[in-house]
Amino acid sequence: MKPKSTIMRKRIELKAVEWASGKVRLIDQTRLPQEEIYLEISDYRDVAEAIKTLRVRGAPAIGIAAAYGFALGASGIKSKTKKDFLLKLRSISNELAATRPTAVNLFWALERMTRIAKNVSTIEEIKRALVSEAKRIDSEDEEMELKLSRLGSSLIKDGDTIMTHCNTGALAAGYGTALGTLRYAWESGKKLHVFACETRPLLQGARLTAWELARYGIPFTLIADTMTGYFLSQGKIDCVIVGADRIVTNGDVANKIGTYNLAVLAMENGVPFYVAAPTNTIDLSIGSGNDIPIEQRNPDEVTHIRGIPIAPEGTRAANPAFDVTPHRYVSAIITECGILREPYINSLKNIR
Amino acid sequence: MKPKSTIMRKRIELKAVEWASGKVRLIDQTRLPQEEIYLEISDYRDVAEAIKTLRVRGAPAIGIAAAYGFALGASGIKSKTKKDFLLKLRSISNELAATRPTAVNLFWALERMTRIAKNVSTIEEIKRALVSEAKRIDSEDEEMELKLSRLGSSLIKDGDTIMTHCNTGALAAGYGTALGTLRYAWESGKKLHVFACETRPLLQGARLTAWELARYGIPFTLIADTMTGYFLSQGKIDCVIVGADRIVTNGDVANKIGTYNLAVLAMENGVPFYVAAPTNTIDLSIGSGNDIPIEQRNPDEVTHIRGIPIAPEGTRAANPAFDVTPHRYVSAIITECGILREPYINSLKNIR
Repeated sequence: MKPKSTIMRKRIELKAVEWASGKVRLIDQTRLPQEEIYLEISDYRDVAEAIKTLRVRGAPAIGIAAAYGFALGASGIKSKTKKDFLLKLRSISNELAATRPTAVNLFWALERMTRIAKNVSTIEEIKRALVSEAKRIDSEDEEMELKLSRLGSSLIKDGDTIMTHCNTGALAAGYGTALGTLRYAWESGKKLHVFACETRPLLQGARLTAWELARYGIPFTLIADTMTGYFLSQGKIDCVIVGADRIVTNGDVANKIGTYNLAVLAMENGVPFYVAAPTNTIDLSIGSGNDIPIEQRNPDEVTHIRGIPIAPEGTRAANPAFDVTPHRYVSAIITECGILREPYINSLKNIR
Repeated sequence: MKPKSTIMRKRIELKAVEWASGKVRLIDQTRLPQEEIYLEISDYRDVAEAIKTLRVRGAPAIGIAAAYGFALGASGIKSKTKKDFLLKLRSISNELAATRPTAVNLFWALERMTRIAKNVSTIEEIKRALVSEAKRIDSEDEEMELKLSRLGSSLIKDGDTIMTHCNTGALAAGYGTALGTLRYAWESGKKLHVFACETRPLLQGARLTAWELARYGIPFTLIADTMTGYFLSQGKIDCVIVGADRIVTNGDVANKIGTYNLAVLAMENGVPFYVAAPTNTIDLSIGSGNDIPIEQRNPDEVTHIRGIPIAPEGTRAANPAFDVTPHRYVSAIITECGILREPYINSLKNIR
């Protein structure tokens, strides 16, 4: 008997950040999609700069980059005593932590690295252990995302049209979170069509998600952020799926600015709204979304696009980089430990 | 007794389109805010081109420009018989009508011009009458908008923060509709702060509304369209006010893409959502918003910003220029004949 035919598509590999011969190698995402330029960084300060300026971005990728930056910084410390070494390491960690306030994965990774440093005896051993730990964070992250993507892909039916926001693929993570879920569904042979929101101000959807989708061969339509309601209200979208920068105790989700708009519009039109994130995005130290610090970036990112002014000179602009989606809008949270549903206050606690 | 002090601010004049010595003079809005260039057009085909390419835009301004284009076209017709003249005029009207499908003011103005042509006896008389009629449409529009702005400004309290979308000021109309309402409130001495949505893809908010507000001296903050929900959910916005390209029998409103998003987000956050438009925007020949033709523009407007690509080459994009806001989201419709409320199916009929 012939087995039921299943087209399994080949996985297209893509790595946003990695450790390469004692350096941190990353693709400069500010130059995409026009130029594909890889940076090889040997000073942790340049890793901090790369995180701050979004050369590397996306909650999981920020965590991984920070871990590598931590290991890189440690390797450059010249100390005679362990006490002095740990002091210098603390200052490196603080510098990396000060880059971006919203994605919790950054702090999670730095804390994990710090614990390693404290538990190993000699300076040289610590340096080696930190490189190993950063690599472990990297590979574990990729594993978690592959797992959550596999689980999440069960929510995607063959032939679905899915709307997504910002970039949540391999550029933002190991395998991808929200986009990972779509990638996994696609690799499993499902037919898909993606509506990618351009995601102003920094156009991660137009620049990065479009670039990734084209690379994977997944058919998609780019839309401006103003068009989300138009398509959601026409019954063309089967579900919305986004990533997360921080998920707190009650299930509220901080994610790229515009996510809340999408969540409200999805609910209003009866379209499921899914959040996909590894469990290191969960922050049970905060009760509700009101207490998540929201990064306010330079208004020039709004008044200029790719360096070109789009508003009269002197225009005042606001630039919150994230918003909070209250949990009542979230149909499910996809993690590597399972697909969570309301009440999140229970389901989030139980996976830990 | 000293009268209660009322600061009345000076009106800053601004004219998007006008008749000047037998030509149509208009400010090229595709060049704003970087360049302030006035075009003097002597061929009606160039008026059609200017409407199609958005050198002149905004529902009322399109109507006025089409009326002037009609008069300009008529003045250039060389016919021996009235029958031949009217045939040629019909073809000019069709050409002007084919520029943009959604704003009803265009068709309203062309029909009004056509009626004049039919009711006057000689060709030379018709040519003169058409110029007069176009000027009358222009000045009546400005009067209507001034009146609706005065009425609408009663909804704006001193110290209010108002969110608006696209451009609905003097560039889009005679005096302005939604922005006219804010302009009137400001001229009456009220303190205001405006949140202007940039309005992708063509950035009429960032380019034109910011330019007008700066000119009037009204304080404002420019935001990306992704940020609307963030600010609406923070209780910072007292009301949302937008214009309209077509309002139909049941009160459904076609307006710039993104308006529906704003309406849903406003209702979700208990913020009043107002539509301001002169009565020639009302189309009682259509029952509900589902039947309003929605212009689909060139996808290049999404994949490029001011000529610069923002997505990978070959990216497919959608570009609906308008959306429909169902009447249940509309708190009030501000017209020159009064502020209408639900049930719009009655209130819209009664003003005609």
